[in-house]
Amino acid sequence: MRDFTLHTTVAASYGTTLDRVRDHLAEAGFGVLTEIDLQATLRTKLGVEVAPQVILGACRPQLAHAALEADPRVATMLPCNVVVAAEGDLLTRVEVFDPAVMATFIDTHGLDAVADEARARLTTMITNLTSELEATGAARA
Amino acid sequence: MRDFTLHTTVAASYGTTLDRVRDHLAEAGFGVLTEIDLQATLRTKLGVEVAPQVILGACRPQLAHAALEADPRVATMLPCNVVVAAEGDLLTRVEVFDPAVMATFIDTHGLDAVADEARARLTTMITNLTSELEATGAARA
Repeated sequence: MRDFTLHTTVAASYGTTLDRVRDHLAEAGFGVLTEIDLQATLRTKLGVEVAPQVILGACRPQLAHAALEADPRVATMLPCNVVVAAEGDLLTRVEVFDPAVMATFIDTHGLDAVADEARARLTTMITNLTSELEATGAARA
Repeated sequence: MRDFTLHTTVAASYGTTLDRVRDHLAEAGFGVLTEIDLQATLRTKLGVEVAPQVILGACRPQLAHAALEADPRVATMLPCNVVVAAEGDLLTRVEVFDPAVMATFIDTHGLDAVADEARARLTTMITNLTSELEATGAARA
């Protein structure tokens, strides 16, 4: 089974991490088009309790447009999901659907370039987030 | 390259198809959690014109919960994207990210069952939509 996400786990609270993910996504050139509070949704619809977690739908319009030009079916994989999930009081997981996966389904040169750029930007986002939040000195759970 | 979507093209306008997709999704047990108007987004952000198209984020909470229990990384593939895109005045494409793809990344029995049920429900949705809208007698472009 191939790995299909880019991910990190940082030594910071859910709230702090979520705030910082938003900022780092913006720095990486991504806007957030959608937001699903999974904990609230599952509580309301099913009455079940899960850890605090949100799915941010991140989009860089230039890349989305180029991807759609390469293959309109790419729309079914947009926007790029960025999940922020609490794993403890001071431990939060950030997991991003790896854009490289798109290129495993669609064999066009145009899409490869787009997926590579998206992946590079999101990798930088995760690296910067990890550096910043691990540097706080907060202990891992 | 494997096919990664379930899809149909129906002989109906974009607006009619979008309305009917919403109803058929509800009948199939899916709520719509998010909605991205791709045409409006790309016009506003980039000043480019694309055909009318929307990405509906469809979710059946019972299936989402079961999938997350099987593997939390599944959140990066939720909700299930349903794209409705105009291809002509009376020709509209409906394209759904195939839940079976999830099972190609994650090898757990629990997830297979969830993906199978989601796929069956979405396939029924597409079949019913196609029967209904092709039965209108509208000409293909």
